[in-house]
Amino acid sequence: MSRKGLLIVISGPSGTGKGTVCKALLKKNDFWISTSATTRSPRKGEVDGVNYYFLTEETFKDKIKNKDFLEYAKVYENYYGTPKSQVLKAIDEGKDVVLEIDIQGALKVKESYPEGVFIFILPPSMKELKNRIVGRGSETPESLNLRFKSAYKEINYVSKYNYAVINDTVDNAVENIESIITAEKCRVDRIKDEILNSKEGILYE
Amino acid sequence: MSRKGLLIVISGPSGTGKGTVCKALLKKNDFWISTSATTRSPRKGEVDGVNYYFLTEETFKDKIKNKDFLEYAKVYENYYGTPKSQVLKAIDEGKDVVLEIDIQGALKVKESYPEGVFIFILPPSMKELKNRIVGRGSETPESLNLRFKSAYKEINYVSKYNYAVINDTVDNAVENIESIITAEKCRVDRIKDEILNSKEGILYE
Repeated sequence: MSRKGLLIVISGPSGTGKGTVCKALLKKNDFWISTSATTRSPRKGEVDGVNYYFLTEETFKDKIKNKDFLEYAKVYENYYGTPKSQVLKAIDEGKDVVLEIDIQGALKVKESYPEGVFIFILPPSMKELKNRIVGRGSETPESLNLRFKSAYKEINYVSKYNYAVINDTVDNAVENIESIITAEKCRVDRIKDEILNSKEGILYE
Repeated sequence: MSRKGLLIVISGPSGTGKGTVCKALLKKNDFWISTSATTRSPRKGEVDGVNYYFLTEETFKDKIKNKDFLEYAKVYENYYGTPKSQVLKAIDEGKDVVLEIDIQGALKVKESYPEGVFIFILPPSMKELKNRIVGRGSETPESLNLRFKSAYKEINYVSKYNYAVINDTVDNAVENIESIITAEKCRVDRIKDEILNSKEGILYE
């Protein structure tokens, strides 16, 4: 069947290992990965259009005005953003696009592209998350407690997502995400028209 | 995680091979299979409560009055129905229940249990469906055309379902259904409360 690709947004609290899960997912599957734009200067060996699109602050702010970003954020002195036009072009060409992104960014993407598939990565348990935070060590009980509280609070954002995947093992998490993507391609509200508007009685050829 | 099981309803037009797909699915997976009730008399070797629950027409009609069936139908002189209480009990015990059922029955189940997972099995193409119908042979062009038209009409019911799975090969269809079930178990609207009401900061233990 020829059809639009999916925008798959993978997100979650810090300390859940979503980065590792995404790396494993992208290694196994042929997804289209978007190149972010940033106003920070290239580091040694970084190539414009490969590692990032390196933009001046002026250009970046123009693109913000023109709503050219699916989401953007200012981290310290630098802007980072996901260019909208390229992602939408890839989706129109039937490519599945994966975005690994923090919770705030994911919620912005959802505003401009609600038909995306929003997946929230969870730790095996809050106990385990606490262990991971403590594991990083060299913190006072107060700061540990603060970081744990903020992670615990972040969990509440799960209700804004379509799916929650527990990162008990990376393999399990990847398999669950792959199943979610397969299932979404079978969702009637995505493929109904394709089925019903089939030409000459031939469904999907 | 301990949670309710899923009601998985597998349905579709005649000639799509949904029966074969279900057999293969149930062979590979440990699903709970409901025993139907009927008013027809047991055939040689059939055991009450195993092959069917054999009921008198009076008892069956009482159960209809008491809304004890997820769905029922009268085929020729006999009634057939899916007992509601047992299915719901299995689901409450966390078992996944599979029902293979015709389109009319599936739509009735959806009325009384909308949170079920409704999967519509499609033929690879209408051309293929036509081949299968013609393949059965010994029919006049008129009756062939009539049967093809009704199958084509039945396809329109896909819009009442959650998922559509193409039975190009039985293995592909089964894998897609398995992915749908895995994905549904990750749906936030099914597991949100479980995540957020987690006790003592421990999520799902």
